[in-house]
Amino acid sequence: MIYIIVGLGGTIGAILRYLVGNIFKKFTEKHGIVTFFINITGSFLIGYFSTRQIPEEFRYFLIAGLLGGFTTYSTFMSDIVKYLRERKHFEAFVYMFFSIFLGIIAAGLGIALANGIWKA
Amino acid sequence: MIYIIVGLGGTIGAILRYLVGNIFKKFTEKHGIVTFFINITGSFLIGYFSTRQIPEEFRYFLIAGLLGGFTTYSTFMSDIVKYLRERKHFEAFVYMFFSIFLGIIAAGLGIALANGIWKA
Repeated sequence: MIYIIVGLGGTIGAILRYLVGNIFKKFTEKHGIVTFFINITGSFLIGYFSTRQIPEEFRYFLIAGLLGGFTTYSTFMSDIVKYLRERKHFEAFVYMFFSIFLGIIAAGLGIALANGIWKA
Repeated sequence: MIYIIVGLGGTIGAILRYLVGNIFKKFTEKHGIVTFFINITGSFLIGYFSTRQIPEEFRYFLIAGLLGGFTTYSTFMSDIVKYLRERKHFEAFVYMFFSIFLGIIAAGLGIALANGIWKA
């Protein structure tokens, strides 16, 4: 049963990722911008929802399924290698640095928000 | 139609990720080991399959769907934040460094293999 719930979340996550990618393509052809946006947003949401008390099944659907499927590591790596092959070492570094740096901050902010720190 | 193909790939990717996670849980409870293994494997496969000539529909199924859904950035970030909250700064750094470093190498090796460099 959990496998079906995770799979269903993964379906929606992957379709959402493809949809967001198509919307971004209208504005920029630059590698990585869309993956960056998706990964940062997903990191914030996983921080928030993994901290909030939510029903067990919904947790599998949302965290292991949807957010796991929405964000992607393989495209992140593939984008960096594309920059490196084009000898755009600076762009590769900036993309990598900000993805990690802002990803950690986004996940941390999600946790802080779920813990009600901002309400204090 | 493409949305259905991407969604189907995402379903399988997320279920595979959850399955691999369950297998790993039998051996280790350490954060990130499974995500690390999944992300490095997925990076190698995306390097390989994005370089090989494969039919258009299969590309969407495999790359945007399956590998995008299999690998995950949100859990990677969430694992790093867990280490940081436990004040395991060194573990956080090692996990982050090797995920990125070996991910780039894995994607590059996938590309090299697809280009037949190893056959020469």
